[in-house]
Amino acid sequence: MTTPSGNEVLFDRIAIIGIGLIGSSLARGLKEKGLAREIAIHDASAEAMRDAKALELGHHYCASAGEAVANADLVVLAVPLGAYADLAPMVAPNLKQGAILSDVGSVKQAVIRDLGPSLPEGVHFIPGHPIAGTEHSGPKSGFAALFHGRWCVLTPTPGTDEGAVARLKALWTALGSQVEIMTASHHDQVLAITSHLPHLIAYTIVDTATFLEDETMQEVIKFSASGFRDFTRIAASDPIMWRDVFLNNREAVLEMLGRFTEDLTALQRAIRWGEGEKLQEVFTRTRAIRRGIIDAKQA
Amino acid sequence: MTTPSGNEVLFDRIAIIGIGLIGSSLARGLKEKGLAREIAIHDASAEAMRDAKALELGHHYCASAGEAVANADLVVLAVPLGAYADLAPMVAPNLKQGAILSDVGSVKQAVIRDLGPSLPEGVHFIPGHPIAGTEHSGPKSGFAALFHGRWCVLTPTPGTDEGAVARLKALWTALGSQVEIMTASHHDQVLAITSHLPHLIAYTIVDTATFLEDETMQEVIKFSASGFRDFTRIAASDPIMWRDVFLNNREAVLEMLGRFTEDLTALQRAIRWGEGEKLQEVFTRTRAIRRGIIDAKQA
Repeated sequence: MTTPSGNEVLFDRIAIIGIGLIGSSLARGLKEKGLAREIAIHDASAEAMRDAKALELGHHYCASAGEAVANADLVVLAVPLGAYADLAPMVAPNLKQGAILSDVGSVKQAVIRDLGPSLPEGVHFIPGHPIAGTEHSGPKSGFAALFHGRWCVLTPTPGTDEGAVARLKALWTALGSQVEIMTASHHDQVLAITSHLPHLIAYTIVDTATFLEDETMQEVIKFSASGFRDFTRIAASDPIMWRDVFLNNREAVLEMLGRFTEDLTALQRAIRWGEGEKLQEVFTRTRAIRRGIIDAKQA
Repeated sequence: MTTPSGNEVLFDRIAIIGIGLIGSSLARGLKEKGLAREIAIHDASAEAMRDAKALELGHHYCASAGEAVANADLVVLAVPLGAYADLAPMVAPNLKQGAILSDVGSVKQAVIRDLGPSLPEGVHFIPGHPIAGTEHSGPKSGFAALFHGRWCVLTPTPGTDEGAVARLKALWTALGSQVEIMTASHHDQVLAITSHLPHLIAYTIVDTATFLEDETMQEVIKFSASGFRDFTRIAASDPIMWRDVFLNNREAVLEMLGRFTEDLTALQRAIRWGEGEKLQEVFTRTRAIRRGIIDAKQA
């Protein structure tokens, strides 16, 4: 069956647990494209629930996660990673046979650790991660185009039903994303360098600046266009979400951070000893990566 | 006297030494606004000189710096910081009495060190730094609007003629910038945190990524939208210019880098030991700085 927008209804009932930036963008995308007959929403925050209703993001606004997921064909968890373990006992027993359980968390091995053991037989568990976002939070900051042209990674465990994976893939494709399948551990390693370490570093340098004297701090803000500004945008990302990312992808982040500090120490030494050639060599090499990103149309 | 554009001719002859991104943007701005009767250009690169001529950036294309600065009322050096010491003996003896010598370098104490001693009496030496740029280099990448709405810092030494400072300030104001006067040492300290350290860190993380296995590297490029991308743009900046910045602002950069690595080590420890409250506290604090930058209209 196709909808007035020309898209197919892919799921009868989709439950979205957590209606922040990503959850609300998903809800908007689903509605805009008519990809679900019904959208059921639950969020632990009363304010978020009020906003979701006011914005008409769904069809059912449920007081509990269990109520939202009952009878859902697809459940998407869009809560901070630290909330998964508490959600599991409310979600797992209420999943219907044949339902797909997915999520949008930025770390994937931890999700398998926290949700996997409690899931009943006959439920298809397909962790997911749409690689998209902004530095804004909450239901009001979402928008349907957030996923357009972005990647969505799915990390099904071995033996997962291929038909279920294909259905979830079709959903993200309909939302405008390109879908990539990989193992959870590989995902966590790649994201540690592309996303988690850049965020950690941006948070750190902005925090370093906060401890300068007041007068200097005012000038840092004034002259932020010279590089610092780009870091502050990243460092304005949701604190709870990012706390949970670092707590849940500890090994991969510490490994990449170790490599980074070795490289930084080498550059620090080159600066101290006036080794211009070493600096120029590194700064020339990094330009090539930028060209790769422009060529891959991710700039 | 005013020009057809309604601006005043502020200088009879302006010499621009170095016609890269900043020098060529300056030339375009001067021509667009009719701020100089004549623009004389010199660049050590034959290719840059050819491009400058083809783009009609000036009125005189001079084979030597000495020829370009002769009879100039204002000389602006727009070369990498490492080239100043070699330029000094070619520029200084040819400056006319009453001329203003300025520059656009990202470090200011080093400029005073390299140029100050060789300057004749009767020349007004006013180091400058327009805080504007892109990751592109060369005469073709310049544009007149580069300085619009950006800050330009001037760092005259004590006793500099106030009339000369006012004339240079009027020039940058006419180009669309806001002008701030401060000491060279304060400039170098503020820029170390707002610009130099962010660039060093961006170069480092992008270089760290280049040493991952090929397969992972391809995925880093693919998934770069998640944070890494913003760093690659900064890390695509001109390698020679940035080599010279670090070699010439060593003390301030090493000081800020020391503070940064202390803070990063503290966060690393918090991640290792699962100290979520500590992480959340830092990530919440940094959001406030972003708001300051948005309020200051530098976002």
